[in-house]
Amino acid sequence: MDKHQSLHAYIKEELLNRIKSNTYKKGEQIPTELELCKDFDVSRTTVRQALNQLTMEGYLVRKQGKGTYVAEQKVKQTLSHTMNRYSDQVANQGKKAEVSLIQISVVPANELIEKHLDVSTNDPIQRIERIRKANGEPTQYEIAYIPWSVAPGITKKQAETSLYAALKDPFGVPIAKTTENIEITLADEQISTHLECEEGLPCFYIETIAENEAGKRIEFSKSYFRGDKTNFTIERNYPIES
Amino acid sequence: MDKHQSLHAYIKEELLNRIKSNTYKKGEQIPTELELCKDFDVSRTTVRQALNQLTMEGYLVRKQGKGTYVAEQKVKQTLSHTMNRYSDQVANQGKKAEVSLIQISVVPANELIEKHLDVSTNDPIQRIERIRKANGEPTQYEIAYIPWSVAPGITKKQAETSLYAALKDPFGVPIAKTTENIEITLADEQISTHLECEEGLPCFYIETIAENEAGKRIEFSKSYFRGDKTNFTIERNYPIES
Repeated sequence: MDKHQSLHAYIKEELLNRIKSNTYKKGEQIPTELELCKDFDVSRTTVRQALNQLTMEGYLVRKQGKGTYVAEQKVKQTLSHTMNRYSDQVANQGKKAEVSLIQISVVPANELIEKHLDVSTNDPIQRIERIRKANGEPTQYEIAYIPWSVAPGITKKQAETSLYAALKDPFGVPIAKTTENIEITLADEQISTHLECEEGLPCFYIETIAENEAGKRIEFSKSYFRGDKTNFTIERNYPIES
Repeated sequence: MDKHQSLHAYIKEELLNRIKSNTYKKGEQIPTELELCKDFDVSRTTVRQALNQLTMEGYLVRKQGKGTYVAEQKVKQTLSHTMNRYSDQVANQGKKAEVSLIQISVVPANELIEKHLDVSTNDPIQRIERIRKANGEPTQYEIAYIPWSVAPGITKKQAETSLYAALKDPFGVPIAKTTENIEITLADEQISTHLECEEGLPCFYIETIAENEAGKRIEFSKSYFRGDKTNFTIERNYPIES
């Protein structure tokens, strides 16, 4: 046990190992607080601290009067914003994917948009606000900005199927490269409403700039993912350094 | 203004736009609460809520009796665990990179390690606990697990320069592929001690499995990054879908 590690942190790590190693299986009930007290020979307060933190982090679910259960797998996502890929990813996890459009509006470019897209102040920008769901549960809240001059008159249908497919055809500006910037943010009222979580929940915040072959910036988007329900996987092959 | 958006969320977004567009510059003082109240014609409580959230998220820094300042750039990192790359990245931001070893110990494989490496229960595993710093500030707390059988007797020097370089030479197991899994976790006592932050701070938690050319799993690591001081950038080129 690490000298810096408190007892509840140690027990949290032990429980997390049991979850990650499937000793405690997804969706199944774990031992009661009292059983865990005996098991680890610690106080109920200590066990509760560990359980509370694992619950906040989305590994455990407390069910009123029923006990504590291992949460279902977080929705795994590769870092991709194309609808096809998203639905494939979700389908591969045996879940139903859908995108619902909140609204498409046209807004004047502000400093932030000017910084990320090749536009001038007050140029008309299409603001496309969407929610992505897996099995009806919101997983992603996204606001995409696309200049009117680049792809005029994006439709509801295009926004709810694949925006990237539409940018390729009919708009003729296929996306060739994306640059994503990932930070952690806290859900404000707007985000928590759309992701159906409490305010203050830590969320992934991703800003994406999408370019075409020529390096022209086509789309800037802001996406929010519930931190307790999302994990991202990144696979990379790379040359060995000497 | 979005119908779901509260006043303080709206003001937070406005201030964030000014920060991201460099209207408010890194390291500079922003207007006082009173000035912002006038500017937005809202109550001090509302301004304070917005400022508090931006401070929690690491965009602003409150200085006792001095006012509120825009935080320095978060440490940008590409998702890479090789020391060379890390120091390059940090150097490119004009900061000094260092790795300090907390300890190398040999531990018996537990379920979690068995799940991620090709080992059996109680096989000897080298546990390498390190902290990465930029300009003396801790940015990453990492625990790497490498089977004794794969690379026996890893030294302090190897751990503090580049583990991946050492795995290539002298150990002859160069890393060819990594799979990283990114989640959000909350700093426990151990993490907060090493990252010098308060307990409960949202952090990036990354599990990495590193394989050699033959697909043999060489290293499993757990890394923690302060959420308020880290952002990750991912660039991807991809074929257009039809």
